Amino acid sequence: MTNQIEFRPIGTIHTPFQQRQGMPIQGALFPENRGTVEIDPEYEEGLKDIEGFSHLILLYYFHESKGYDLAARPFLDDCPHGIFSIRSPRRPNPIGMTVVRLINREKNILHISGVDMVDGTPLLDIKPYFPDVDAHPDAKTGWMGDKLNQLGKKTVSDNRFSDTD
Amino acid sequence: MTNQIEFRPIGTIHTPFQQRQGMPIQGALFPENRGTVEIDPEYEEGLKDIEGFSHLILLYYFHESKGYDLAARPFLDDCPHGIFSIRSPRRPNPIGMTVVRLINREKNILHISGVDMVDGTPLLDIKPYFPDVDAHPDAKTGWMGDKLNQLGKKTVSDNRFSDTD
Repeated sequence: MTNQIEFRPIGTIHTPFQQRQGMPIQGALFPENRGTVEIDPEYEEGLKDIEGFSHLILLYYFHESKGYDLAARPFLDDCPHGIFSIRSPRRPNPIGMTVVRLINREKNILHISGVDMVDGTPLLDIKPYFPDVDAHPDAKTGWMGDKLNQLGKKTVSDNRFSDTD
Repeated sequence: MTNQIEFRPIGTIHTPFQQRQGMPIQGALFPENRGTVEIDPEYEEGLKDIEGFSHLILLYYFHESKGYDLAARPFLDDCPHGIFSIRSPRRPNPIGMTVVRLINREKNILHISGVDMVDGTPLLDIKPYFPDVDAHPDAKTGWMGDKLNQLGKKTVSDNRFSDTD
């Protein structure tokens, strides 16, 4: 098995959030939260025709996350669940994924909404969102149930996943 | 900016596909294609409660992909598009993402369907699929339009993204 895999940031995600405490726990529930993706100029050509997509999948590095927990209590539940059943940043490979809405593009800058990452987050990849394969509105959600709808709007993060706790 | 980011595989994805040629281009269009995710035993505890979810997001390493193209002609179109507007494996950071259906779990093995990666693909992360934030059935799809529905079932990959072309 390939033992070590190296990636490099291709840009930076800028958001209104200077610290994790008080951030939205899931960006799609906060469409009013705007941000920008700044792609390094060397990759700008790779954005050709991205304007046609209303939604983008951002993959990024949870750069403030150090270490991981195999089980943790997520923001929306009182019980601990396995790390692969929750979206905590303290993962064996701290890769974040958020589906954001694309507002418009200016050269190497994408204006987006629905951000839920800290300002300065290193970007790893952008993929176009294809509803035919990415949208499963009837998916079963286990422990989560309907909690996102019931509690989501009121819920922002605390410091439970910070390095110091 | 963080310059170099290191990840390690947390397991392996097993599929019926020994080579990329002839594979489905998007797994969700081929729900009959079954596979397994074998998590390294040291991470098995992280799977707790995953059985409640019908869909999982797999992030994996396109380990056979060498180098990248900033623009390429995807399987479903005759025109080249920017790499961030298509899902080609030849990306600056070759991270793949597929939403699969979870059939059942046996200890550290997940039986899944809708696979579209080569056998032996190194797994980087598993996230639970939350339709409230991940499902956007009405998303606009730019150059893709309705091509996945029109052509998808007939379309399997050729060798255009192989190392040798």
